[in-house]
Amino acid sequence: MTNKLGKQSLRFASPPVITSTGTAVGPFEAQGPLKDDFDFCYRDEMAGEKSFEKAERRLMYQACNIALGKQHIPNDQVDYLFGGDLLNQIISAGFNARDFGIPFFGIYGACSTSVEGLILATITLSGGFGNLALITTSSHNSTAERQFRYPTEYACQRKPYSQWTVTGAGAAVLSSSGNGPKITTATVGKVADMACKDPLNMGAAMAPAAAATLAQHFSDTGRNPEFYDLILTGDLGKVGHEMTLEWCRNQYQLDLGPNYQDCGLLIYDQNNPQVHAGGSGCGCAAITVYGHIYKRMMNGELKKILVAATGALHSPISCQQGENIPCIAHAVSLEMP
Amino acid sequence: MTNKLGKQSLRFASPPVITSTGTAVGPFEAQGPLKDDFDFCYRDEMAGEKSFEKAERRLMYQACNIALGKQHIPNDQVDYLFGGDLLNQIISAGFNARDFGIPFFGIYGACSTSVEGLILATITLSGGFGNLALITTSSHNSTAERQFRYPTEYACQRKPYSQWTVTGAGAAVLSSSGNGPKITTATVGKVADMACKDPLNMGAAMAPAAAATLAQHFSDTGRNPEFYDLILTGDLGKVGHEMTLEWCRNQYQLDLGPNYQDCGLLIYDQNNPQVHAGGSGCGCAAITVYGHIYKRMMNGELKKILVAATGALHSPISCQQGENIPCIAHAVSLEMP
Repeated sequence: MTNKLGKQSLRFASPPVITSTGTAVGPFEAQGPLKDDFDFCYRDEMAGEKSFEKAERRLMYQACNIALGKQHIPNDQVDYLFGGDLLNQIISAGFNARDFGIPFFGIYGACSTSVEGLILATITLSGGFGNLALITTSSHNSTAERQFRYPTEYACQRKPYSQWTVTGAGAAVLSSSGNGPKITTATVGKVADMACKDPLNMGAAMAPAAAATLAQHFSDTGRNPEFYDLILTGDLGKVGHEMTLEWCRNQYQLDLGPNYQDCGLLIYDQNNPQVHAGGSGCGCAAITVYGHIYKRMMNGELKKILVAATGALHSPISCQQGENIPCIAHAVSLEMP
Repeated sequence: MTNKLGKQSLRFASPPVITSTGTAVGPFEAQGPLKDDFDFCYRDEMAGEKSFEKAERRLMYQACNIALGKQHIPNDQVDYLFGGDLLNQIISAGFNARDFGIPFFGIYGACSTSVEGLILATITLSGGFGNLALITTSSHNSTAERQFRYPTEYACQRKPYSQWTVTGAGAAVLSSSGNGPKITTATVGKVADMACKDPLNMGAAMAPAAAATLAQHFSDTGRNPEFYDLILTGDLGKVGHEMTLEWCRNQYQLDLGPNYQDCGLLIYDQNNPQVHAGGSGCGCAAITVYGHIYKRMMNGELKKILVAATGALHSPISCQQGENIPCIAHAVSLEMP
């Protein structure tokens, strides 16, 4: 059991490498501060399709296509596709798997899906069960809005703590060898439930899960926050980011320090009032990490990072039935050789 | 790459063992031909809860609790929980993961989820990333009916090829050592799409995926159907079972032979007109395999079996938008030492 580290973490003896990534985003993301880091920007949120759902699927297809294309990898050389998204029955990922014809594992961890996929793919390759995996996830503002909240036509007034679901998809090629950041450790999350019931305040609901997984990661690995050039949560936004700092301090006596950031705060101009508390959605961590962060690792700006993606595991039905919003966070560390 | 077998299959050098199982079912399943093989039968389909969704969750909780309880395994000794179900955002599995507090991977493969979970758990344990995993899945006739089709109050007339979604949950404890059937090989499915569009005819939609995965399994492993005492698909029912036999014969020159059965045909009395084409749902394969089949392996009646669970990866939205129903099948072989 040399791979297991503490209670919830893994150290990979043969860490696989993210050898390429692909990102495709919507028009709003293409105007944000990370715009130069995306591979493909659509000019309209329909992406030339007839429905929001089909548009989301096109984003995911593009991201995968770009990630494979950068290395001229034919589909049939990829051993596994790990994919998931926010839509009911993860249809974006399901149809995408059909289009690529790669053996497929469908996963669901809400906005933690990107890192859940990275962990499962790393376990699979590091365990010797394949050489190449493709990991993908997506979200779309309008598909998420109308599925989880209100019809998009309502133009509901949003709360100050609301987040803006990212329209974007990210994909990563994970290989048992090659150049790029290696996935060296992983921490698998447990579900945390702090009795939050407001589906408009995702940051607050997810922060305790983020804090628990981060604290567990440092405890299991014996590392401390200074070990990393950057600690990044996936889509907590302003409220969740502050709460995570506070929870780590108060519950776990852990100071995340100045290197702690959140993808939901990086992705949009925080002065834009439309954004409210920041970005969210499966695509938020995916496009930020596979676009912005990946470039900075490849050019040497960042050497060691920890990414913890958080997901809220509720559904509209569970909220309507009075249930709490249970949340989870999974983390991986990426290190340049 | 000694673990990889052909294009889509794996042979496990250190095959993990299903050391115990748990099943909890609804009242209709408790009247069927497999009734004596279930651990817990609820007398009403509400299972003492206030909603169908909460009832489904209770079934899953029971199944997990029984599977762990049979071996007196405390929750905190389980390294991972792999769970998924048919409900939007897999809420049964998410809440269940909260209740057990085990590091959680949420998965979605529609009715193929049970075997998808077994494969991912086997990869994880066989790769040396843990010693104990819990795998669970569930379905509930009334939650599925109202989510995928019509409000339960409608009492819609059903087509002759309709299947009856199983109310039941199954759980398996997978261990790196112990007594019981070993998971020796796995075949990871690709998504098949034969342009079926009728969400009431799941058997026909899923049969090509089942046939493709079965044919790939025999091609990858070099085994033939006679190698197994039983070849079992998950929930194809009468229509899908016949179509799979035919597809295997016509497309792949593969005769599945007399040992080919389907869980959807075993679970209910086929003379009951309510059942129409047979059983379906995530729970169908789970309770049949973890209840009926597991007992027959443990008492020596069956030595080697192949289980292929099939899933239809559509959603009501994708069907309403005119999309086909893409399908997948995953297979594992279970062998007694």
